[in-house]
Amino acid sequence: MADLDEQARAQLVSVSTATLTTLLFKRGLRNVFLQNVHPVAPGLPRMVGPAYTLRMIPAREDIDVLDAYADPAHPQRHAIEHCPAGHVLVIDSRKDARGASGGDILLRRLMVRGVAGIVTDGGFRDTPAVAALGFPAYHQRPSAPVGPIWHHAADFGLPIACGDVAIYPGDIMVGDGEGVVCVPAGIAAAIAREAVEATAYEDFVESQVKLGRRLPGLYPATPESRAEFERWRQPPQQD
Amino acid sequence: MADLDEQARAQLVSVSTATLTTLLFKRGLRNVFLQNVHPVAPGLPRMVGPAYTLRMIPAREDIDVLDAYADPAHPQRHAIEHCPAGHVLVIDSRKDARGASGGDILLRRLMVRGVAGIVTDGGFRDTPAVAALGFPAYHQRPSAPVGPIWHHAADFGLPIACGDVAIYPGDIMVGDGEGVVCVPAGIAAAIAREAVEATAYEDFVESQVKLGRRLPGLYPATPESRAEFERWRQPPQQD
Amino acid sequence: MADLDEQARAQLVSVSTATLTTLLFKRGLRNVFLQNVHPVAPGLPRMVGPAYTLRMIPAREDIDVLDAYADPAHPQRHAIEHCPAGHVLVIDSRKDARGASGGDILLRRLMVRGVAGIVTDGGFRDTPAVAALGFPAYHQRPSAPVGPIWHHAADFGLPIACGDVAIYPGDIMVGDGEGVVCVPAGIAAAIAREAVEATAYEDFVESQVKLGRRLPGLYPATPESRAEFERWRQPPQQD
Amino acid sequence: MADLDEQARAQLVSVSTATLTTLLFKRGLRNVFLQNVHPVAPGLPRMVGPAYTLRMIPAREDIDVLDAYADPAHPQRHAIEHCPAGHVLVIDSRKDARGASGGDILLRRLMVRGVAGIVTDGGFRDTPAVAALGFPAYHQRPSAPVGPIWHHAADFGLPIACGDVAIYPGDIMVGDGEGVVCVPAGIAAAIAREAVEATAYEDFVESQVKLGRRLPGLYPATPESRAEFERWRQPPQQD
Amino acid sequence: MADLDEQARAQLVSVSTATLTTLLFKRGLRNVFLQNVHPVAPGLPRMVGPAYTLRMIPAREDIDVLDAYADPAHPQRHAIEHCPAGHVLVIDSRKDARGASGGDILLRRLMVRGVAGIVTDGGFRDTPAVAALGFPAYHQRPSAPVGPIWHHAADFGLPIACGDVAIYPGDIMVGDGEGVVCVPAGIAAAIAREAVEATAYEDFVESQVKLGRRLPGLYPATPESRAEFERWRQPPQQD
Amino acid sequence: MADLDEQARAQLVSVSTATLTTLLFKRGLRNVFLQNVHPVAPGLPRMVGPAYTLRMIPAREDIDVLDAYADPAHPQRHAIEHCPAGHVLVIDSRKDARGASGGDILLRRLMVRGVAGIVTDGGFRDTPAVAALGFPAYHQRPSAPVGPIWHHAADFGLPIACGDVAIYPGDIMVGDGEGVVCVPAGIAAAIAREAVEATAYEDFVESQVKLGRRLPGLYPATPESRAEFERWRQPPQQD
Repeated sequence: MADLDEQARAQLVSVSTATLTTLLFKRGLRNVFLQNVHPVAPGLPRMVGPAYTLRMIPAREDIDVLDAYADPAHPQRHAIEHCPAGHVLVIDSRKDARGASGGDILLRRLMVRGVAGIVTDGGFRDTPAVAALGFPAYHQRPSAPVGPIWHHAADFGLPIACGDVAIYPGDIMVGDGEGVVCVPAGIAAAIAREAVEATAYEDFVESQVKLGRRLPGLYPATPESRAEFERWRQPPQQD
Repeated sequence: MADLDEQARAQLVSVSTATLTTLLFKRGLRNVFLQNVHPVAPGLPRMVGPAYTLRMIPAREDIDVLDAYADPAHPQRHAIEHCPAGHVLVIDSRKDARGASGGDILLRRLMVRGVAGIVTDGGFRDTPAVAALGFPAYHQRPSAPVGPIWHHAADFGLPIACGDVAIYPGDIMVGDGEGVVCVPAGIAAAIAREAVEATAYEDFVESQVKLGRRLPGLYPATPESRAEFERWRQPPQQD
Repeated sequence: MADLDEQARAQLVSVSTATLTTLLFKRGLRNVFLQNVHPVAPGLPRMVGPAYTLRMIPAREDIDVLDAYADPAHPQRHAIEHCPAGHVLVIDSRKDARGASGGDILLRRLMVRGVAGIVTDGGFRDTPAVAALGFPAYHQRPSAPVGPIWHHAADFGLPIACGDVAIYPGDIMVGDGEGVVCVPAGIAAAIAREAVEATAYEDFVESQVKLGRRLPGLYPATPESRAEFERWRQPPQQD
Repeated sequence: MADLDEQARAQLVSVSTATLTTLLFKRGLRNVFLQNVHPVAPGLPRMVGPAYTLRMIPAREDIDVLDAYADPAHPQRHAIEHCPAGHVLVIDSRKDARGASGGDILLRRLMVRGVAGIVTDGGFRDTPAVAALGFPAYHQRPSAPVGPIWHHAADFGLPIACGDVAIYPGDIMVGDGEGVVCVPAGIAAAIAREAVEATAYEDFVESQVKLGRRLPGLYPATPESRAEFERWRQPPQQD
Repeated sequence: MADLDEQARAQLVSVSTATLTTLLFKRGLRNVFLQNVHPVAPGLPRMVGPAYTLRMIPAREDIDVLDAYADPAHPQRHAIEHCPAGHVLVIDSRKDARGASGGDILLRRLMVRGVAGIVTDGGFRDTPAVAALGFPAYHQRPSAPVGPIWHHAADFGLPIACGDVAIYPGDIMVGDGEGVVCVPAGIAAAIAREAVEATAYEDFVESQVKLGRRLPGLYPATPESRAEFERWRQPPQQD
Repeated sequence: MADLDEQARAQLVSVSTATLTTLLFKRGLRNVFLQNVHPVAPGLPRMVGPAYTLRMIPAREDIDVLDAYADPAHPQRHAIEHCPAGHVLVIDSRKDARGASGGDILLRRLMVRGVAGIVTDGGFRDTPAVAALGFPAYHQRPSAPVGPIWHHAADFGLPIACGDVAIYPGDIMVGDGEGVVCVPAGIAAAIAREAVEATAYEDFVESQVKLGRRLPGLYPATPESRAEFERWRQPPQQD
């Protein structure tokens, strides 16, 4: 699992998921934003990190009992203790939020361990406490029922589905107040650079729109508006 | 497209969407509240204005490319520049929030132009920024992916569906913290007047309920309770 | 309908719905958390009380007119006036939020009467006002349309479905910021006691996780960790 | 529960559910066709009869065990033995087809008893055998799992929801190859008469369309086309 | 609206919708198969023809009354009389099958007029009679309720959505027992030619698989398997 | 992967999925019937065999191209060639039927190889041809679009979800005209024996119901009815 370059991490933490989807679309990638996956609470810090994956299948009553958690080799508990610092734990919960994918104690443990965030397309429990943690956590909706009622943690470290998006271990997960985008590992550094540039141009557009300027000729960019942008972004010259 | 009388606008901005649905139901109109359409953020100003409509159909890969936006005749961009001030831009996104119906730059442009608000049954992108704009915006859920992945802006100015409700251009769209109701243009002024009256009676009911009064004989109104209400609302006489 | 022991009420108001679902799962009850039922607003007080049930069926145009509410025997109005203080009014709205299950005036009346809260798997109207009431209210999503467009109040006091969960009159409804759990009446007192104990242990776990401790051997509990917990919770001895 | 007049029964068995919905719409009744309720198999006989209702709520593991069926007072078993001959057993299964609402043995018992048919908005089990019975049975989709996994039979003889439609005991249920319509008891005889007339006119229209005639002026009917119809339907005169 | 070349029509009528989606995918078109749109009955003839579009929006009670159909300019009735022979009438019903998009009389009129078929993403009524017509008709599910309860025919001849696919007037609609695919007008002739070739190769593959041959090296094709195919398809030489 | 005992196979092929769900429920297994998974066509042979699993995740445009199928190591193609004879290929398609999980050529290859059947919770393409094969195939609904538009075959031989049910490799899949049930490998032989007994009793019940007998005291069985059944099933004695 490739590590994330610190420069790319810094760049990605400063751009929006919306900007990233546009750049990924330019490269032919249409399905990168996790559907129906939302921040547990408003105002959480942004999230950037490589994906560490965990896969749930439906529970079976004779296998999925509370005592199963006592085994340190249980894949969910293993993932909680072994997801590397700086990574994002991404859980394939089959979009089923009837049972929890995790709760405040597990999330606190991840936070203490330096994990960058957690994502499920199911639901977390103890969400009032989770909201207070200040740890980037994304899910579908709150779900108090304990996990084994509906979920069996099958394995970790495999490609998974999350929110209808393919997540390969090591793909870079970026989360903001809008949701989570998955940037394929191989192009993450390039996308990060482009995103910083695109964001700068969008800032320019915003400044112009505030002044009452029309969008045509400005957004999307034209050669003329790009030239204008270059002048706008330049630091004022000194004599 | 008929303009909205200033008195009616002032009246409508002071009443709730719940009150309006009751009055429309009395006239036999059952399907006027947009389903699954919510304010982008809590605390936005109320919205009142005639509908200016934009219609999306599904995207096709060879037609819906980012460069298409460069054409000022592109219906979405046309709508952004031509939706009249005081109107509400209403977008038929076929209840599909997988691709964005618009983002913060477009919404800021609408706000600068004096448009009264924007409504889609899909999703907006850049919603953290949109929430900060203070511009009335209603959608299904946040959606970072750029629009052309799923949507093609087909035309504007036609009757559309939005949130399972028929929207005819010029119908009066009213939005509050609960959602959006569509008041047919021809009865908007009458409904506005009735709504102010109904709201006054509801204020009376609320004052009575706070005092511990039972609802029967009070809500719904009886001739006796109406008479009592008339005395209640009267300004105290001076000698 | 059995009353709720004051001690059990005090215990239940201090524990989370997540903890309760775990304890109920241990007794073989898997389906106790109401699906897609959320607090109307963040920050409302917790809710505990026995269920008083109201059942809606679909509306029929010739029966469900606004005037029907004028009859004090109308089951919804009856329920508003007769749901006992300290109880929770639970409404089976067939998960249909297209028409309201109630609004701010009804909820205020319940609050004034000392009712402990209200739950529907449909939607409430006047939700901005409801949010300001400070009364525990749980629903699916805001719904401005007046109830009789889609709902007919059929009867009260019968076992119902709410959020896909069976609710028998007198079952203890517990609500927190996450949602609502239904605790069968017969085991509510025992569950309340166990929940206080489980919460204490979870507090211990949280204190240890904050210190950097690993979960295996701690959560789920082992005989050793339980012994440690007993020492941890003991008040410091005085000489 | 009013019995169904034999003439009305004969009339209703000869008309389509589509024709009935049109006539009910003319009287302001819009919501009379059960949604997502289909014949178990093609080619079953038509169904006409007054509704005898059975209501399911979600199962609870400690209550809904297989042994519960041994009690003759169990509402489902009571309904099977007491639904009057000529009536239709209509089951409110909350549109949940994860557990069966009944199977071939129960349906055969109903058939032997002379019951006119059975309807659920859930699913039946043993559907290959049910299809072979030749008994009118309507459901959402096949569902092998035994009922108590998801359903608890709560009571019978009350107004219910089925397929999003209000069903009052005694309402006349009419089923054909398309689905099931609920005709309110009080107007069933009048609707039956009108339906026979409307069907005759539709037969006339069909005969004309086969000859290549255009629809305007013919369908919907005009005074001229009605006069023509009256001549068309008249038996040829004899000398 | 471009006519369909007779050779292309003959080619398209002989290939499967599955083969067409593969060829369209090779050109980058992913979203061409109408979702949740099925033949009304098994065994209907295949359908090929250019799209003639009709658009429905939600009904409004004061506009959508039965008498509205008496107006020959009513868009639905206009479409029935003016959809050109050889074309396919495609209806955007917003995937709403609660009200019918048409019934047996309208479909018979289309058939008599030489129209090639009809498609809706809603439902047809009188489906037992429609099934007997032998006219290609595709929909979501049977729906007895008369159209104006839920639908208003807004206009015809515009680009629409049907089954989540963009349909431009003149696009070639092809239907078989599996469903309906939309082939963009500009590439229909080329796709038709390619489809005949692809089908011939699939016939070759099938003949080989019947003989027990493994798929690798055969399907997908390799240069060697293509050469083998060319020999296979050649008519036996005569001396 | 354990083989299936020939006796158990013969027993399972003679009982219904409904009977199996009842017996599994008695052992506490509630979630064993695949939801929304149906036979591709009526009248296919019954299916019994151990599960060989294949797992799909969402497609990514740069990975999932048609040429990927040319690699014999491609998991889907590997599964087609290596699923053992007598086994059932079970595909986790995440309940997504927008792209095909397979088509007639692959299914024919499986049939030629002696595989017992195929199951997906997505859809198959070429379903008219598949229906003609006479090979047990179960899916959600027909889906013409080629697989890589939406699916990436990730791996095989792992525990998966299919139709919301946990499928472990080697579990015994049993399919009839109603759908598919998953019998855990370890109890399959015992369940098979019990199912034959239960079916015999149901045959007895059916014979009695045909004679007009009431269900109480007969179904569910009582000690008396069991004794009567034992006499009924005994072959007539010969002198």
